[in-house]
Amino acid sequence: MIASIEAAPRRPTSAEETRRRIEDTAEQLFRSMGYQKTAVADIARELGMSPANIYRFFASKSAINEAIAQRMLGGLEAEIWTIARSDLAPPERLASLLRTLHRRHLALFFAERRLHDMVTAAMAEHWGVVERFIQACVTAIRHVLMDGMAAGDFARGDAEAEAKAVKQAIIAFVHPVLIAECVGRNTPEAELAADLDGVIALILRGLKNVN
Amino acid sequence: MIASIEAAPRRPTSAEETRRRIEDTAEQLFRSMGYQKTAVADIARELGMSPANIYRFFASKSAINEAIAQRMLGGLEAEIWTIARSDLAPPERLASLLRTLHRRHLALFFAERRLHDMVTAAMAEHWGVVERFIQACVTAIRHVLMDGMAAGDFARGDAEAEAKAVKQAIIAFVHPVLIAECVGRNTPEAELAADLDGVIALILRGLKNVN
Repeated sequence: MIASIEAAPRRPTSAEETRRRIEDTAEQLFRSMGYQKTAVADIARELGMSPANIYRFFASKSAINEAIAQRMLGGLEAEIWTIARSDLAPPERLASLLRTLHRRHLALFFAERRLHDMVTAAMAEHWGVVERFIQACVTAIRHVLMDGMAAGDFARGDAEAEAKAVKQAIIAFVHPVLIAECVGRNTPEAELAADLDGVIALILRGLKNVN
Repeated sequence: MIASIEAAPRRPTSAEETRRRIEDTAEQLFRSMGYQKTAVADIARELGMSPANIYRFFASKSAINEAIAQRMLGGLEAEIWTIARSDLAPPERLASLLRTLHRRHLALFFAERRLHDMVTAAMAEHWGVVERFIQACVTAIRHVLMDGMAAGDFARGDAEAEAKAVKQAIIAFVHPVLIAECVGRNTPEAELAADLDGVIALILRGLKNVN
């Protein structure tokens, strides 16, 4: 009986699991070799699959990249919402949310410069994914602003418009091209963080309830 | 006598005038053909000069581009200082200064998309010129903030740090790459202007003297 259990055929990998394995392997290769230099054939070889099998799951390397971008941004979005819904006072919550956005974007470029062409490709080819993420960030910021308006920390106003203005005001600290520029010029991380704190302080004073 | 005046040799063009003519002609060609597609030989032909003669004045096409960038940014810098030193109340002066920066940068891309590769080349090859311009903008903003602090419009604080924060907060509206992105996505000019007004309103409330 034991022998027959050992010999039992492995439960077939579900399509979902295979997609996930392809994404994981592709992400590893994009990180180590760079996006442009990685071919679908490399991903297939690493997985012991045929390229044709990969194409059953993803129409192109670009489609794999889209799935990875969606996953990464989905994780960051969840983190942002955890902060937006935390028990911190709204001004601290907003500061924490903006600093987290900056740190996560920065990590992508300081720690993993090879991801740059992957992100650039995602922004050019899958702007919809990026745009939905940006919109989710604005919604999370609005959530904090509305809490702050209700609690009397922030002056009452158009929370949607204010959230959009806050998002625009911190673009220097989260846009991949601008971060890449700072990295290229060797701007120290601490200087960037201090600059962001200056902008956050200005934003918080602008939002403050002065009555 | 009249005949001899007419026949008198034209006063020799000074080196400064020749440089200026080369810059003017190059700028026209960059605008009409694009920076990358314009060769020094094209500029020479247009001027009825030999390329060798151009190289007596500029070491390369890149050096001509540097001179043009310096001239353009110099003109904008003068305009910014006129606003910074105007009689408007400091908050209006600051708003006007920031809107002017946005409009001038935008015109460069909406009206003259061909200038994009010229600006991109200038940013990559002559960052010193661009950086000096950015620093001049921060200095002009600081000038307005100090006037506003003295007049009681703005809360007293570190004018240099505040000016830097203001500059960072409006990067979305002046950075060539971000403007090019908006142009590429056909964001209407009016929407951009309204977004900028939202950020300016937030900045002005943040700077306000609330005592």
